[in-house]
Amino acid sequence: MESHETKYSNSVEEDYDINQDQAAVTRRIQRLSLHLNPISEPPVSSDRLQLLTCAGRAKINVSDEQLAKYLRGKHRDIQERVYEYFNAKPDLQTPLEISKDEHRELCMRQLVGLVREAGIRPFKYVVEDPVKYFAVVEAVGSVDMSLGIKLGVQYSLWGGSVLNLGTKKHKDKYFEGIDNMDYPGCFAMTELHHGSNVQGLQTIATFDPLRDEFIIDTPNDGAIKWWIGNAAVHGKFATVFAKLMLPTHDTKGVSDMGVHAFIVPIRDMKTHEVLPGIEIHDCGHKVGLNGVDNGALKFRSVRIPRDNLLNRFGDVSRDGKYTSSLPSINKRFAATLGELVGGRVGLAYSSVGVLKIAVTIAVRYSLLRQQFGPPKQPEISILDYQSQQHKLMPMLASTYAFHFATSYLVEKYAEMKKSRDEELVSDVHTLSAGLKAYVTSYTAKSLSTCREACGGHGYAAVNRFGSLRNDHDIFQTFEGDNTVLLQQVAVYLLKQYKEKFQGGTLTVTWNYLRESMNTYLSQPNPVTSRWEGEDHLRNPNFQLDAFRYRTSRLLQSVAFRLRKHSKTLGGFGAWNRCLNHLLTLAESHIESVILAKFIEAVRSCPDVSSRAALKLVCDLYALDRIWNDIGTYRNVDYVAPNKAKVI
Amino acid sequence: MESHETKYSNSVEEDYDINQDQAAVTRRIQRLSLHLNPISEPPVSSDRLQLLTCAGRAKINVSDEQLAKYLRGKHRDIQERVYEYFNAKPDLQTPLEISKDEHRELCMRQLVGLVREAGIRPFKYVVEDPVKYFAVVEAVGSVDMSLGIKLGVQYSLWGGSVLNLGTKKHKDKYFEGIDNMDYPGCFAMTELHHGSNVQGLQTIATFDPLRDEFIIDTPNDGAIKWWIGNAAVHGKFATVFAKLMLPTHDTKGVSDMGVHAFIVPIRDMKTHEVLPGIEIHDCGHKVGLNGVDNGALKFRSVRIPRDNLLNRFGDVSRDGKYTSSLPSINKRFAATLGELVGGRVGLAYSSVGVLKIAVTIAVRYSLLRQQFGPPKQPEISILDYQSQQHKLMPMLASTYAFHFATSYLVEKYAEMKKSRDEELVSDVHTLSAGLKAYVTSYTAKSLSTCREACGGHGYAAVNRFGSLRNDHDIFQTFEGDNTVLLQQVAVYLLKQYKEKFQGGTLTVTWNYLRESMNTYLSQPNPVTSRWEGEDHLRNPNFQLDAFRYRTSRLLQSVAFRLRKHSKTLGGFGAWNRCLNHLLTLAESHIESVILAKFIEAVRSCPDVSSRAALKLVCDLYALDRIWNDIGTYRNVDYVAPNKAKVI
Repeated sequence: MESHETKYSNSVEEDYDINQDQAAVTRRIQRLSLHLNPISEPPVSSDRLQLLTCAGRAKINVSDEQLAKYLRGKHRDIQERVYEYFNAKPDLQTPLEISKDEHRELCMRQLVGLVREAGIRPFKYVVEDPVKYFAVVEAVGSVDMSLGIKLGVQYSLWGGSVLNLGTKKHKDKYFEGIDNMDYPGCFAMTELHHGSNVQGLQTIATFDPLRDEFIIDTPNDGAIKWWIGNAAVHGKFATVFAKLMLPTHDTKGVSDMGVHAFIVPIRDMKTHEVLPGIEIHDCGHKVGLNGVDNGALKFRSVRIPRDNLLNRFGDVSRDGKYTSSLPSINKRFAATLGELVGGRVGLAYSSVGVLKIAVTIAVRYSLLRQQFGPPKQPEISILDYQSQQHKLMPMLASTYAFHFATSYLVEKYAEMKKSRDEELVSDVHTLSAGLKAYVTSYTAKSLSTCREACGGHGYAAVNRFGSLRNDHDIFQTFEGDNTVLLQQVAVYLLKQYKEKFQGGTLTVTWNYLRESMNTYLSQPNPVTSRWEGEDHLRNPNFQLDAFRYRTSRLLQSVAFRLRKHSKTLGGFGAWNRCLNHLLTLAESHIESVILAKFIEAVRSCPDVSSRAALKLVCDLYALDRIWNDIGTYRNVDYVAPNKAKVI
Repeated sequence: MESHETKYSNSVEEDYDINQDQAAVTRRIQRLSLHLNPISEPPVSSDRLQLLTCAGRAKINVSDEQLAKYLRGKHRDIQERVYEYFNAKPDLQTPLEISKDEHRELCMRQLVGLVREAGIRPFKYVVEDPVKYFAVVEAVGSVDMSLGIKLGVQYSLWGGSVLNLGTKKHKDKYFEGIDNMDYPGCFAMTELHHGSNVQGLQTIATFDPLRDEFIIDTPNDGAIKWWIGNAAVHGKFATVFAKLMLPTHDTKGVSDMGVHAFIVPIRDMKTHEVLPGIEIHDCGHKVGLNGVDNGALKFRSVRIPRDNLLNRFGDVSRDGKYTSSLPSINKRFAATLGELVGGRVGLAYSSVGVLKIAVTIAVRYSLLRQQFGPPKQPEISILDYQSQQHKLMPMLASTYAFHFATSYLVEKYAEMKKSRDEELVSDVHTLSAGLKAYVTSYTAKSLSTCREACGGHGYAAVNRFGSLRNDHDIFQTFEGDNTVLLQQVAVYLLKQYKEKFQGGTLTVTWNYLRESMNTYLSQPNPVTSRWEGEDHLRNPNFQLDAFRYRTSRLLQSVAFRLRKHSKTLGGFGAWNRCLNHLLTLAESHIESVILAKFIEAVRSCPDVSSRAALKLVCDLYALDRIWNDIGTYRNVDYVAPNKAKVI
């Protein structure tokens, strides 16, 4: 680490510019690249072409087996069963070229085969062991991401709505059919004009006391249920989210009780004909995931029995009286949406799975591919170029980081489903929103970077970057638009800041905030801000402090700005004025959580050599993020110039 | 512009964090968004759905007609002819779903129809008016990007190699057939193991004096010509790049004269059978551009007449003697590649065309789409959100900037083809490399941003983001990998720095460097660094100085570092050690050129209202880039804290 390469000195000749510290980064990266084992045999083979073996590389002494064992966790077995099933069924593998309609049929056959032939029962795992369920989702996603999503629609969305929003009568009636795929179903929440703003949904469910039925109506074309998976071809039922309207005796005639969920049969169980009053349109080709049959649903006076209201949080009696254990529309709405958090947990977890595939392909290829080199010497592997290392090595480190963070999320989610502890519910809700947004955005960007880093061969469809990117793309949008989800994280942080800073208890994930606030918000420590030894920089306490310090500062400053702007702009205007600030705050918090979980995972690793390897990538993750934000740290003298040089 | 929102003050309570200046950015953006006209009618219509009209917006008084006239240039007519032809031919329009093989055939029919039916003659324009040719390329690219690339392969690559590397005998023999599509051809440069490193190509062309022929050979599988457009299905000929081997009388037996280009017939003119000794493989499905039939070519002792050497820069006589007007292998190689610069010019220009389509779709949708809003008030358009503005408005400004920069490039290219002025050749070569790299990278990222900014409806295939991204993706790689091209810009900058700084003349594009060096590299002016008035910030001189100052500093500092590291690492090692620094230098230079051309274009606009509108987007472009790099400017006190606040 050279002291004469820095961004912050005043000497023009030596020290100016935004890239001079790259040399230090490179050295870190080079050290970390040793973590990658040499590829002794070409990983790619072909009938026609014999690839040259790539240059051998130095090897760090890591037990692959131990490391893999630590990473894979206890549900690797069920993932292996998924892979074995599909490996043995060439007719169920998705070809590179397939029409939308064939893809949809294939995807349905894959799902039915998985459940009925391979004996994988996702719905049972949803109930009994959510961690196992998410392991299945990740595995089938790597077979075909459309299958992962179709499975998620059936078991997490349609099935999950029945389980979590319904009561015993619904479970008794529908569980078996959902489980064994006799009852393929849809989750009809999003409308053409309302996606993120779920409270703005316009579909109406009016109670008819005469016939003891609800009447489902689409009042205008903007209220057509849109993008509904399983609707275009396969669905028999749909959980339809609609405003519950109860007749009143006043002049208005009806009372809006807020958004509720209803089970609506959409196709005949025998003939598969679309039922009367229902119009189904095909949403057509999408950028990716064309194995999923998204459709649009329009309702004209569709009658369903009163029992079809999913009545866990609110019920209507035979005589049209409304009852609920929750006091307000907003509370009921929050409880309803809160039960659907599993989908986000699955997306965050699966997105890391996609990142793992992509980064592995890109790093392996970059070790294999050689181009240019010193004069009259053999060409060097493209991973030896600073620019390529810069693209791929922090991405590799992030993949490990996200693996541990989302594994933690999945465990917390399972714990929450058991304990129903309120603090935990709230923590999992926010963490799943934040990790879903942060991880899927990162993966989406990385998929493009990987393609580009692999040049022309990255453009061959067989090398998967295209389909991975096209299929994954929408992960940033569905189950909550990332920009909206990050705002939920910011809301929660501000709530914590306001309500609990003064001596209250914070939930586990946020606990650091109080400490950080107390410790740092006066002035950075002028001594530690200058420490630059390798031991200090690789010290997890320094790294974590830096992350948490930033979050605390962002939180305090945005709280101040919101207060200030509210006076002139009102709450909504002030929020919008500070929106990018709020998004940065949310990301900063999520990064703090990710790093904390990574550091824990390193500490808990029982195998010495694996632990050393993980420590290297953990340091790269931490220092890369600090480096990305070095201007912030420098501006408040959290990091002194001499220290900035060596990071 | 509020003075209490800043990143650089020491007051924690008020001023910390990286986003507080967003408010100032927002104000600029809000002003600029007025530039967008209200959408009085919904731009999307459907048989099934009636969209609500979006909220009306304030209107800046701009004459659409005048602005369009100024932007469109003189070759709009031929573009209209292209659109009219395809609009009148529904059978030639590419459907959303089409198999690879059908797409290839359709693309061929589109091209043949364009030439033989619509009377568009791209090859004539290549010779007579390159600006017109590039206008055609942009237009057909918006019909189907595969068609744009297939046309480019035929006329710019295969045709261009015959025109520019051959002599009169080649032109006489091939011009007509290339022009009228009787001779579809390929450009066989890239090999499986060598893409960027063209000098490392391994295909061999050995002269056989007995039969007065060259023998083309693929010595190993790594030398198979790969990704060759037009090869898999349609090509009759290929320009094959191979090392020319001449027999000698010494012990080595042959002498390697370096890479030359040869015309090799690959399919029978009548039967279309692949000719003996040639093996053609299909490169299969790609991420995009599946209307182009990329193939792999392998040669086993394929004999071609001596006349098939494209002999403009080097020739072989009947008795095997080599002659050339150029003194060395390196000079001939440079001259050969230099003639192929037209491809890059076309890609940069077409990439802006793609960006125009995407940013128009995204901005229009963002004005139309409404979601959330202040309590009890109507929902607001999503373009009213700070986060959405931040995504799309600088992108809109960049699109205008790139439009003028690439239009300038196209004109310079045409001028160069006429004058053959050496300085101009060198300038166009570097500028085309830099703009191609910079613009295609920016467009690729923007396509993902646009999709994400349009949420679920951005994921509908019919809204084009998917196909635009998939087709455009490879623009970053072919005709020169962007990372490699930026290094060529850096090389040229360093050459200028070394050779010409001391009193020599600089070519037009680089002329600013000497001035910048002299003016700024001592110390920033402590007075102007504090100026913060709107007039000053919108002053093009301030903006341009800031861009050029940065480039000059980057250039000087990297030159110093290269010298220093060369001592211990050698030239190659030092270059690699400074690689990210060099890439940043190249991008900074290209941004300087783009801004200079944008400022010129604003000044030259004859219509007052159009000029005012363009000035607004030009300011946004300049200030957004300065803001992105504000840390750099702050660190050297080019911008004082008070000024940083208001940018």
